[in-house]
Amino acid sequence: MTDPLQTGATIGILGGGQLGRMLSVAAARLGLRTHIFEPGAAPPAADVAHQLTTASYDDADALTAFGKSVDVITYEFENIPTSALDLLETLAPIRPGRQALATSQDRLTEKDFLQSLGLQTAPYADITDMGSLTSALDKIGTPAILKTRRMGYDGKGQARINGRDAAADALAAMGGAPAILEGFVPFSHEVSVIGARGADGAVACYDPGENVHADGILRTTTVPAKLNSGQRTDAVLIAAKILNALDYVGVMGVELFVTPQALIVNEIAPRVHNSGHWTQNGCTICQFEQHIRAVAGWPLGDGSRHADVVMENLIGSDMDRVPQLAGTDAAIHLYGKTDVKPGRKMGHVNRIIKAG
Amino acid sequence: MTDPLQTGATIGILGGGQLGRMLSVAAARLGLRTHIFEPGAAPPAADVAHQLTTASYDDADALTAFGKSVDVITYEFENIPTSALDLLETLAPIRPGRQALATSQDRLTEKDFLQSLGLQTAPYADITDMGSLTSALDKIGTPAILKTRRMGYDGKGQARINGRDAAADALAAMGGAPAILEGFVPFSHEVSVIGARGADGAVACYDPGENVHADGILRTTTVPAKLNSGQRTDAVLIAAKILNALDYVGVMGVELFVTPQALIVNEIAPRVHNSGHWTQNGCTICQFEQHIRAVAGWPLGDGSRHADVVMENLIGSDMDRVPQLAGTDAAIHLYGKTDVKPGRKMGHVNRIIKAG
Repeated sequence: MTDPLQTGATIGILGGGQLGRMLSVAAARLGLRTHIFEPGAAPPAADVAHQLTTASYDDADALTAFGKSVDVITYEFENIPTSALDLLETLAPIRPGRQALATSQDRLTEKDFLQSLGLQTAPYADITDMGSLTSALDKIGTPAILKTRRMGYDGKGQARINGRDAAADALAAMGGAPAILEGFVPFSHEVSVIGARGADGAVACYDPGENVHADGILRTTTVPAKLNSGQRTDAVLIAAKILNALDYVGVMGVELFVTPQALIVNEIAPRVHNSGHWTQNGCTICQFEQHIRAVAGWPLGDGSRHADVVMENLIGSDMDRVPQLAGTDAAIHLYGKTDVKPGRKMGHVNRIIKAG
Repeated sequence: MTDPLQTGATIGILGGGQLGRMLSVAAARLGLRTHIFEPGAAPPAADVAHQLTTASYDDADALTAFGKSVDVITYEFENIPTSALDLLETLAPIRPGRQALATSQDRLTEKDFLQSLGLQTAPYADITDMGSLTSALDKIGTPAILKTRRMGYDGKGQARINGRDAAADALAAMGGAPAILEGFVPFSHEVSVIGARGADGAVACYDPGENVHADGILRTTTVPAKLNSGQRTDAVLIAAKILNALDYVGVMGVELFVTPQALIVNEIAPRVHNSGHWTQNGCTICQFEQHIRAVAGWPLGDGSRHADVVMENLIGSDMDRVPQLAGTDAAIHLYGKTDVKPGRKMGHVNRIIKAG
């Protein structure tokens, strides 16, 4: 695909959660349709999508029909089975590409990649057995955290090692899966850069946002982040370096730990990112439209920031606050999920901090 | 319905054009679903709606099923047959209400209503036969324009009378339909106010925009409009007076002619309005979300303006300019219409005029 998608063309999206939902809306704004592929029933994205396929990622027939019905394929999450990608890429271009997925699906590959670019990461080591774990702990020290290389999220597949005597239990918790030991970085705060790269190679990054987590879940993102002008420039240059090195097409989230000496790359996500939701009310072109523009072969849009914003996630029973929030100046974004569960992301709210 | 609609509730929308499409997107943002009722096939709104009914307005079974499936009913155009409304209002609340529809469906009723509020209109007279037309021309003079009272749009059902000798032909062109003669107002420019009134009676108006038409179709809306501060206040007060008098719930467009002496009310539209599309990129809460908030029983949102904006409609072959426009800082909004026709509204573009 080299020409930009035209009105009425269809973007296939793997995953039907809130990110797919907001991508669908952005696609509609540009006259494009979406086809959602999602194993779960009644996904949030289906409310605003032209078409929905409910099937598992090992259903070759469903994948084939999906792939044939779309002009380009993108995704809202990175842990898509390789077999599905192998099949889909014969039917339509996948954007962002396989290299970005392969890199971000494996913590060790990701860290090696970042180091190869001269970027700083937390200290880490490849763990295959008790011997490699022992020598890694000699080098990295404790506390440290042992993680499976693949498929971990929200603290699953992770074991903290506070002292040497906890090493054996931590390794057992990996269940034999390839693992990586990561040291802790004494950072003052976390920021993230939402960067975009077009099919033409143009790069545009949003202003960095400052993230606050609780219980392993993002609670708020505030722009501007606490960064001096040198750090701000560095943050954007780091994101641009990663985007270019991966020949990336689409939006990426890059999480950075801020220390007095350096910006440490924590993690990259090859997709639109929760910490970029503020762009919906702080910029003319939000991260979702920027991603759609990129994967559709359009030029990137104007991502400059016109206001200071605080984005707050609405998680679980935070939904009880919606009636009160609706009476404020905030912009409310709900995902249409009727089943409220603790820890479930139900929506978010963007508060514009007026200039002056 | 007195309680605000909750996540997963459904708003029925009569009409599936671009206004219904953008209303659907706004509803989704608030966690609400839409069900579109539209006689035409594959309407633009269907791409982003939860459900679509394709049926005519005299299909009582389809109307009944539609009415039973939704929590509240709204519409994107005002010329809905009365019989359909009579049936639907037994099944779900219709917002804005019947009074607003009855008033705006009949040019004579609308003008009488505006006069009863002490607002200024073009001179007009009820025309039932040649006798009433002759005495109306004595009073109003020429040029004047004869219009059917109901269902006219885009210049249809209208006949211009440049001199007395054209009166008989103009009356014949009405085909026996009840008509109204309107005089011309020597105005310098046209502005419109997009006003909103919540179910709680709160009123909020957007800044007036200045409209430029060509061939009877809106081409551009620019905010701020050329108005002095007194006119600006008057424009908003006029809209608020109309909203309150109709006990209105939802968004309304009020078109005003600007003369040195006064603001003359040209027309009211009981729905979101093309001249309010600039709010999508000039305000935190756009006219579509404001309308959804009102009909869903939510409080109105923050409609204050954070930028100067020029909205330009993309009509017919203007679509050829999209590739060039995509490379600018403008925000593009396309309606997903694949069939380009002369005079057809295909999309619009909002250009932010940066402050300072």
